[in-house]
Amino acid sequence: MGLKSWFPIPKSSGFSLANIPFGIISTSGNATQRAAVAIGEHCLDLGRLAVRDGFSECETKEQWQTVFSQPTLNSFAALGRPVHRSVRKYIQDLLREDTPFPQILKDNQELQDSCIFRQDEVTMHLPMQIGDYTDFYAGKNHAYTMGCILRDPKNALQPNYMHLPVAYHSRASSVVVSGTPIVRPNGQILENPAAEVKKPVFKPTQRLDIELELGAFICKPNQMGQPVPIAEAEENIFGLVLLNDWSARDIQAWEYVPLGPFNAKNFASTISPWVCLIDALEPFRTEGIKNENELLPYLQEKNTKNVFDIRLQVELTPKGGKPSVISNSNGKYLVYSFPQMLAHHTIGGCPMNVGDLIGSGTISGTDPGTQGAMVEITKGGKETIQLEGGEERKFLQDGDTMIIRGVCGNEEDGLVGFGDCTATILPAPKLYQ
Amino acid sequence: MGLKSWFPIPKSSGFSLANIPFGIISTSGNATQRAAVAIGEHCLDLGRLAVRDGFSECETKEQWQTVFSQPTLNSFAALGRPVHRSVRKYIQDLLREDTPFPQILKDNQELQDSCIFRQDEVTMHLPMQIGDYTDFYAGKNHAYTMGCILRDPKNALQPNYMHLPVAYHSRASSVVVSGTPIVRPNGQILENPAAEVKKPVFKPTQRLDIELELGAFICKPNQMGQPVPIAEAEENIFGLVLLNDWSARDIQAWEYVPLGPFNAKNFASTISPWVCLIDALEPFRTEGIKNENELLPYLQEKNTKNVFDIRLQVELTPKGGKPSVISNSNGKYLVYSFPQMLAHHTIGGCPMNVGDLIGSGTISGTDPGTQGAMVEITKGGKETIQLEGGEERKFLQDGDTMIIRGVCGNEEDGLVGFGDCTATILPAPKLYQ
Repeated sequence: MGLKSWFPIPKSSGFSLANIPFGIISTSGNATQRAAVAIGEHCLDLGRLAVRDGFSECETKEQWQTVFSQPTLNSFAALGRPVHRSVRKYIQDLLREDTPFPQILKDNQELQDSCIFRQDEVTMHLPMQIGDYTDFYAGKNHAYTMGCILRDPKNALQPNYMHLPVAYHSRASSVVVSGTPIVRPNGQILENPAAEVKKPVFKPTQRLDIELELGAFICKPNQMGQPVPIAEAEENIFGLVLLNDWSARDIQAWEYVPLGPFNAKNFASTISPWVCLIDALEPFRTEGIKNENELLPYLQEKNTKNVFDIRLQVELTPKGGKPSVISNSNGKYLVYSFPQMLAHHTIGGCPMNVGDLIGSGTISGTDPGTQGAMVEITKGGKETIQLEGGEERKFLQDGDTMIIRGVCGNEEDGLVGFGDCTATILPAPKLYQ
Repeated sequence: MGLKSWFPIPKSSGFSLANIPFGIISTSGNATQRAAVAIGEHCLDLGRLAVRDGFSECETKEQWQTVFSQPTLNSFAALGRPVHRSVRKYIQDLLREDTPFPQILKDNQELQDSCIFRQDEVTMHLPMQIGDYTDFYAGKNHAYTMGCILRDPKNALQPNYMHLPVAYHSRASSVVVSGTPIVRPNGQILENPAAEVKKPVFKPTQRLDIELELGAFICKPNQMGQPVPIAEAEENIFGLVLLNDWSARDIQAWEYVPLGPFNAKNFASTISPWVCLIDALEPFRTEGIKNENELLPYLQEKNTKNVFDIRLQVELTPKGGKPSVISNSNGKYLVYSFPQMLAHHTIGGCPMNVGDLIGSGTISGTDPGTQGAMVEITKGGKETIQLEGGEERKFLQDGDTMIIRGVCGNEEDGLVGFGDCTATILPAPKLYQ
């Protein structure tokens, strides 16, 4: 049985008391960005709560007025996981039916009125100031399918794949919060790859795609030259978000040799606005995709339950049309965990800063209907996705709205969800025409 | 004939009055980081000069006390190139023999004493807060030689190479200022690539290398979704620095498929501390490597003199040994200009921020002795570099000190130089042994 609250939280909400995810809000009455937590269909304004002395009974003493009045969660994240745990528990204590501190919020209607907002009344902002953003490729099923499409099943995975978490540096400046429209990118496209003279054309991408991923935010820096040992890596992770790493497959195919994807990825990546703490995900720990290789010691984890059982879903809605679920995947379809990614990322001494973002890579299952990218679902654009209402898609069209959802657990114990990671596609700008 | 100064500037200095590069200093008497310009063997403390009303005659009126008291040049850069021009000219005016404002500095010994420091007495810091760092691959001779080493002369350049400036996102958090020691990275290395079972070992890189590059800092942001037109791109560039993109070739060879280099590059990149404004480099404009392809319109520049004649030099000094110049290259050995790189980077809508860094890629000539990386000089480690004093190198050893230098023009008109971009190699940390 999950924690019961005196505050109304719908059973179907991913923001039960078992969750308490952190985000950054502003409101029509107060444009200042500040911290909040999500509670059912509402959010609790932590900046305002701190000003009104709402943290007086919290066992951790910090400058909460300052920490929660920042425009990002970086200051809070930098306090470290023991503090996050303590604050999460304190907020659960404030909100549970048998709260030990009823005078603070439960019995204080005036404070409730000034600190609690409906989520559909607030504006969400990027939760963190992101220094660097790295995208891994730890979804083995995705990597295998892509290798089959680009090469052949016998050479689908490169020789390094099962020895290290493959990754590339991506673009921090174009990470945006859920709800931000995505402009279709123009770029160079090779329309006839088989031609002897390879001459690209300039046009909007014809193969705009999603990538269903999880993102992890760093909360503890490591000094340059000093790797993060794998046993300590999870303490350096603030929490997880949903991540849609938008991809232009035709631009990617032409540009990506020999240094990897560039303009095919850097036009946008969307994250969900609420950061779910690792503590909230702890009950959903499970085993990922088994790696038959013996990994080098710096990548060996004691706990084989190193990923999370998160039910992931991708929904596509054409402009004016009906929503269609085009994929059901799961956070456990990873062959490397976030601690392994972090240990690898820093093994040569690369410094990580608070707010750095690490993407998992596309998370796909093996069965039909579980793929996390349209290029996989359509087998490289050869097949078609049938949508509710009769429309078809191989890749995204202008006006399409994508929603990624993620949720753990059950209603009985309280769902732990991420909220929507969504965006609508806008037409490419008309250039040089 | 160049500008003459009342202040002693050695003829051999790259910091003549024709230059006036900007950097960030602190001093033993004042640990606060603030802006300065380099003048001969000295620097002029702009933070202090502003506090002492030294900008009273500058035609551009800004909050100079605030702008030049920041710990980075980002605020100054964000004012835009017309303001940089005006300030550079004003500082030249203050320092020239026939200064129109002798009362401000020339005849004010007390202000000179408090604002002018010997460069060997100040600590230099990273000049900019770097948001994102992108490394291009515009040194065609380097790209060709690497292609010959990794593939064969017929397929040395990929089909996309002459159509677009190839690039990858690199790591902003590990960009350090000249003088910072570089720790040799550990990592996964495949010692026997020909073996049927490919099993990497964990050890310090045995193929630590330099990459001789130029770096450009962005001073004007573009909105997400809105490309920077090529005709406007140069106005978005604050200035250039020397850049050493340290590379671990053995780690790179194993990890880089299919998404590009990662840990082979992200342990460190070194930049020279003084940013040379594009205006100072203007007289040294020249033509780069000719591109026989007709580029797509978004990459076409009117001015074919789109790169700079910068004499580049790489010097290696073993611990306790003598310096040896191992390469003499030139900034003109590029097939794409920085404006072309910026136009390409943003063509899909990627937003650039003030302080973002763009690397040119390794700059190599075609003749022996002009290569910008040891892997090129030694033909992939097959040959040996003979150093003064009898030592030999294929790649860098612990204790080696590298210096990259860059200078334009002649002593008569005043040299325009970057100062040293230097670092010493420290041993790898002992891990898991």
